[in-house]
Amino acid sequence: MTKEQTDAKRIVGTSRLEAFSDGVFAIIVTLLIFEVRVPVLTDISNSGVLNAFVSIAPKGVSFAISFFTVAIFWVTHHHVFSRITHSNWKLMWFNNVLLFWLAIVPFTTAFIGNYPTQAVVVALYAIILCLAALTFWLMNYYVFFKSDLLSDKVSTGERWRHLKRGRWVFILYGLAVAVAFVWVYAALMILVIIPFIFLIPRLMKETE
Amino acid sequence: MTKEQTDAKRIVGTSRLEAFSDGVFAIIVTLLIFEVRVPVLTDISNSGVLNAFVSIAPKGVSFAISFFTVAIFWVTHHHVFSRITHSNWKLMWFNNVLLFWLAIVPFTTAFIGNYPTQAVVVALYAIILCLAALTFWLMNYYVFFKSDLLSDKVSTGERWRHLKRGRWVFILYGLAVAVAFVWVYAALMILVIIPFIFLIPRLMKETE
Amino acid sequence: MTKEQTDAKRIVGTSRLEAFSDGVFAIIVTLLIFEVRVPVLTDISNSGVLNAFVSIAPKGVSFAISFFTVAIFWVTHHHVFSRITHSNWKLMWFNNVLLFWLAIVPFTTAFIGNYPTQAVVVALYAIILCLAALTFWLMNYYVFFKSDLLSDKVSTGERWRHLKRGRWVFILYGLAVAVAFVWVYAALMILVIIPFIFLIPRLMKETE
Amino acid sequence: MTKEQTDAKRIVGTSRLEAFSDGVFAIIVTLLIFEVRVPVLTDISNSGVLNAFVSIAPKGVSFAISFFTVAIFWVTHHHVFSRITHSNWKLMWFNNVLLFWLAIVPFTTAFIGNYPTQAVVVALYAIILCLAALTFWLMNYYVFFKSDLLSDKVSTGERWRHLKRGRWVFILYGLAVAVAFVWVYAALMILVIIPFIFLIPRLMKETE
Repeated sequence: MTKEQTDAKRIVGTSRLEAFSDGVFAIIVTLLIFEVRVPVLTDISNSGVLNAFVSIAPKGVSFAISFFTVAIFWVTHHHVFSRITHSNWKLMWFNNVLLFWLAIVPFTTAFIGNYPTQAVVVALYAIILCLAALTFWLMNYYVFFKSDLLSDKVSTGERWRHLKRGRWVFILYGLAVAVAFVWVYAALMILVIIPFIFLIPRLMKETE
Repeated sequence: MTKEQTDAKRIVGTSRLEAFSDGVFAIIVTLLIFEVRVPVLTDISNSGVLNAFVSIAPKGVSFAISFFTVAIFWVTHHHVFSRITHSNWKLMWFNNVLLFWLAIVPFTTAFIGNYPTQAVVVALYAIILCLAALTFWLMNYYVFFKSDLLSDKVSTGERWRHLKRGRWVFILYGLAVAVAFVWVYAALMILVIIPFIFLIPRLMKETE
Repeated sequence: MTKEQTDAKRIVGTSRLEAFSDGVFAIIVTLLIFEVRVPVLTDISNSGVLNAFVSIAPKGVSFAISFFTVAIFWVTHHHVFSRITHSNWKLMWFNNVLLFWLAIVPFTTAFIGNYPTQAVVVALYAIILCLAALTFWLMNYYVFFKSDLLSDKVSTGERWRHLKRGRWVFILYGLAVAVAFVWVYAALMILVIIPFIFLIPRLMKETE
Repeated sequence: MTKEQTDAKRIVGTSRLEAFSDGVFAIIVTLLIFEVRVPVLTDISNSGVLNAFVSIAPKGVSFAISFFTVAIFWVTHHHVFSRITHSNWKLMWFNNVLLFWLAIVPFTTAFIGNYPTQAVVVALYAIILCLAALTFWLMNYYVFFKSDLLSDKVSTGERWRHLKRGRWVFILYGLAVAVAFVWVYAALMILVIIPFIFLIPRLMKETE
């Protein structure tokens, strides 16, 4: 590799990687609602409309869970990338594979909204998020220990803490996949609980 | 908290928070039109087409009202964030909850476009905007008085003025919810008037 | 107005205004294709497929025309904003109204794709672009002569040249509206020609 | 051209061009999934659901291929633009034409997902990507050899290597077009292989 190639490699920051990712994240969370179709009202009394709401409730719930799940991915993505000083080809492709799995979430969200107790559908929803979490974890592992992309300020201890915590995400989604075929309601409960597991401890603490 | 964590927390600016929010705002306002479906013309004479327009008029009006309502949220968001010097975890989640409510607006807009005089549907439209306005107000309260995220240049007086003005937004949307069940046309009028209340006084003044 | 408010007003650059606008422009041009629905093939021989293409040709043409028309708006927007040093409330709302008209373009594009020779439909397509062009022209007039937002480097002569050229856009679209009710094919021709009028002279010249 | 025009031309960087392009790229890859409609399950046993998956498999595969193909365009776009120091009118229009072809990819992806073995449909999918690759190549040629937009740091040798490699993209897609009418499965194979041809050699090397 010539010196000029080294220079070129160095100067590539992460701004476009972040802009592209922000675009994909923003579109995913915003388009989730478009799978919650406006119900056609056969009875336009107030009680008839409330019944129509009950019938689309599973879609509403799956929209909300997916919104906050993808939002957690975004917040964590933001957190990790704020410590990355520049980008390279491998980081870009780890990121593209992560976005690939997340781009499928609107599909699995619509599917689970239509068939919320079907084991294969629930398992598929969990598999995609498991693969997203696994890809994210591998990207973090690469950034933290196999590259020179990270700011020196991040201590080895903090890197390990982050990886240890992140491991639980794909383990739990993997568990949901397995549980779906045994008792589908338990799998659904895991899917609902996961976002809270990551939000509540942090809401307890005052700062990021 | 170690010094390095403090540093890391500090250096996180608001640029990605703004970029992600801009993406979500941009997608919401642009996709609103996709709920105004192109009418199928059974009579392609000019008068037949004009009749078809009349039939989709409620959708057109709800599109326009939602567009400018979300645009006002964006302008105010821009205004507040231009005074925020950095971001933290709580700000991000206040913002994510705000975007969650706003992401539902295309759904309630399509719904009210289809059933513009149904009380529950009108109330739902107002509830979502009430929750968005309330979340925004709480976020502003947190930023102005419970955090160190704001530029020191913003005086306490200005902070209070902003909060006092902002309070009216969720109060008025809350009023529209209640009124919808009494006299739905009055609720619709409130929904139409709210954007003008916030635009006209400012249009009178020369500068931001 | 206190000094601190003056300061606050000054420091607000145009970056978020541009980012939000770029988002809206990007979504409009990309979503235009979604109105060109994939044809259902009743005859899957090669000639059957080619016939299906012919049947969606008006949608393909209206997609292409709208794509490049909105792209021209974007390029001109980029050009003007590259000379604007900061933003204020009026600029934001001129811009929001511009984006409002442009956000309707996917609707009118789908409509004209379905009914390419219906006078009212063609007129509507032209009216929306006429209003977009007029709003843009008024925004430019405000920026150039009624505000202090423009870089001092732009001479008065250049400002006038820009406004004089820009006037033709809404005049031509206005003409298309009128012509649509007389001879619809002439109106369609005007809509097709307008982008070329603005592209070809510049393609002749070497630089921006 | 006056001095001030020269100055104005110079100061226009590529940031908005990149932001607009990132928006379009992000929307394209994210919206691809929306053409994979959630299947309506007539048989909600686990085997029934798996059968439904098999029936939408061609759509899933075409989604994945298109996602990574557009992602490769994005990575290459990022790579080239990281070496471009400023933008001009010609670069903007080369870029707009590139984005025009790519914006059609969701349409051809949905089409090939519905009719994966129809020769004209497969050829159309390849033609659009061939035209995108050709436009990108011409843009690179213009930037590398006919403009002063490129950073001086990029050597002539590197420019030629890039152009020689890039030539293969449109040649291979052009080949797929021709092959589609002879043996459609061979054309499909070429479409699947192309992304790997560009990913694997680079995955072998450690850095970009």
